[in-house]
Amino acid sequence: MDIESLDTPAVVIDLDRVDANLAAAQRYADEHGLALRPHVKTHKLPWIAHRQVALGAVGITAQKIGEAAVMVAAGIEDVLLSYPLVGETKLEPLARLARATPRLAVALDNDVSLDLVGRAASEAERTIDVLIEFESGRLRTGVVAPDEALPLAQAIDAHTHLRLRGFMTYPLGAGAGDWVREARSVLARHGLEAPVFSGGGTPGMWHAHEMPGLTELRPGTYAYHDRATVAAGAGRLDDCALHVHVTVVSTPERGRAVIDAGSKTLTSDTVAASVGAGYGLVLEHPEAVITALSEEHGVLDVSACERPPRVGDRVRIVPNHVCPVSNLVDVVTVHRGGSLHGVWPVAARGTTR
Amino acid sequence: MDIESLDTPAVVIDLDRVDANLAAAQRYADEHGLALRPHVKTHKLPWIAHRQVALGAVGITAQKIGEAAVMVAAGIEDVLLSYPLVGETKLEPLARLARATPRLAVALDNDVSLDLVGRAASEAERTIDVLIEFESGRLRTGVVAPDEALPLAQAIDAHTHLRLRGFMTYPLGAGAGDWVREARSVLARHGLEAPVFSGGGTPGMWHAHEMPGLTELRPGTYAYHDRATVAAGAGRLDDCALHVHVTVVSTPERGRAVIDAGSKTLTSDTVAASVGAGYGLVLEHPEAVITALSEEHGVLDVSACERPPRVGDRVRIVPNHVCPVSNLVDVVTVHRGGSLHGVWPVAARGTTR
Repeated sequence: MDIESLDTPAVVIDLDRVDANLAAAQRYADEHGLALRPHVKTHKLPWIAHRQVALGAVGITAQKIGEAAVMVAAGIEDVLLSYPLVGETKLEPLARLARATPRLAVALDNDVSLDLVGRAASEAERTIDVLIEFESGRLRTGVVAPDEALPLAQAIDAHTHLRLRGFMTYPLGAGAGDWVREARSVLARHGLEAPVFSGGGTPGMWHAHEMPGLTELRPGTYAYHDRATVAAGAGRLDDCALHVHVTVVSTPERGRAVIDAGSKTLTSDTVAASVGAGYGLVLEHPEAVITALSEEHGVLDVSACERPPRVGDRVRIVPNHVCPVSNLVDVVTVHRGGSLHGVWPVAARGTTR
Repeated sequence: MDIESLDTPAVVIDLDRVDANLAAAQRYADEHGLALRPHVKTHKLPWIAHRQVALGAVGITAQKIGEAAVMVAAGIEDVLLSYPLVGETKLEPLARLARATPRLAVALDNDVSLDLVGRAASEAERTIDVLIEFESGRLRTGVVAPDEALPLAQAIDAHTHLRLRGFMTYPLGAGAGDWVREARSVLARHGLEAPVFSGGGTPGMWHAHEMPGLTELRPGTYAYHDRATVAAGAGRLDDCALHVHVTVVSTPERGRAVIDAGSKTLTSDTVAASVGAGYGLVLEHPEAVITALSEEHGVLDVSACERPPRVGDRVRIVPNHVCPVSNLVDVVTVHRGGSLHGVWPVAARGTTR
């Protein structure tokens, strides 16, 4: 079977490109003495997680307990949960994960989460490492002032089953190095050490070594790349390892074509206007703009195309943002150089808890 | 088990509200002599599809072969595929569906699709009804000029296994009635009849009887309603039958709260500014605005809230657009009046082919 004969829409992964992307990131991390802890939310595939570890990653990053549990069940041994754990409903699942995972760390930014993580660690009778999340420009989660880290650090240090490991932020704002230096000095005055400084994000990953004091890097999208990370200069278009294969199903008027992929395949994620217009890049027709998505329709403005696509044509799309695309499909078709390699279940698809 | 003790994020359906929504639409269709053919893309649940038929719907509408196949396997007997079928990869699945479905109709707008549907019908040795899709303002799929319907109608009429049934459009633009009258008169001059005129869309559903000549209505979202259909006046906030239950996981600064649902639960679908700001409505804090989504984070501006939510609070969200939310989860939790009724697999989740 040829990948060109797949029913569409189809999410197709080029393993050669994945291998090259993983190797390049590991080489960079090794050269600069950074620990690489890839985020698995992009691919949600145990095979790629194992490949990342085999190449030298210290472990993986996962957002949710369910996502981590899938990876641990598949044999991954070192996990950072980078997402704030809050709510009594997380207690049992976290304790179960702590029992199942040889090395588990969590990130948090508040005492409600700290209390929960402490109880889960006690219940599991395991040590959970803790990173204090801080905010470095994204205005999402993370403590704001370096001083706020002290009471959290003291509570972590005082807990029998918790171990203070360091600081985590996302992505890696310009002032992050200063923030960590200041927080470490506050902690040092109270006899506390926090050696890890972990930062995430593919767009700026090749500049991570310029961040003073950084010890660990957590990129995710680099495994596949997408329109946004290419625009950020983190990869080239030829590094994009995930394509959505679609079929042109209608060309009602000159200048308009419709493909069989909408928001239920490509997602409604947009990119900055500077990256380019529309909901993805059509490789065979770069002049086309995906101007609108319904759930299963993608409408293309093809008026700038010298040879516009015709009904029945198959084309490939590089998504704006690849991570949520992986999460929409039950399986991905993987190939090497166009030869079918397998159809893999996206084992951690839908694990949002 | 109480629905307030579900792990979050959780997609929760109020069956009493679903029942009321389905009954109201059926009553309206009956009063106005319209056939009701609900779109199952909203819920993707055989239980609701069966309930729609039991209340008087003539059958269902599905977008994709896979979605229809799930419903037919569950016992639904009359299906309209409202999505253009194109590509050799659709031939076998369509023939299989035609064999399995007592009454199957498809919509199309071009001869490439017509050729495919004709071959599938011949291969299955079944009659497939055909509706010609026309464009009534959405600028998506559908033939544009009434004259363009003639060659399609003639080819359908000439095919042993195809039967010309009528016209279909989405949603139901103001000029749709005139368009159908004109197309019917073109066809009549060639001895062809096209009795069905099918229009879709929840936002304008209560005005469907004002459309001259309409015979069939295909709303989808009305089963659940959402922020967009409430803003359109098609339902009230109290009719919204799908809520996303989430937990507040962080409040890093005054005015900012973060919930454990992002684009992988709520989708990145936006609504018109006139509907309201942000990525959904927080029922307990209507003054809050969901200003940004990451994959698993939702960032709330809570500066206008008199009592802003605290870490650990559970809140409910009415999504902007409910259909893609159903498609993200493997199961929904259903209840009546807060009492757990069951946990149902979303049987047609992910069926984008």
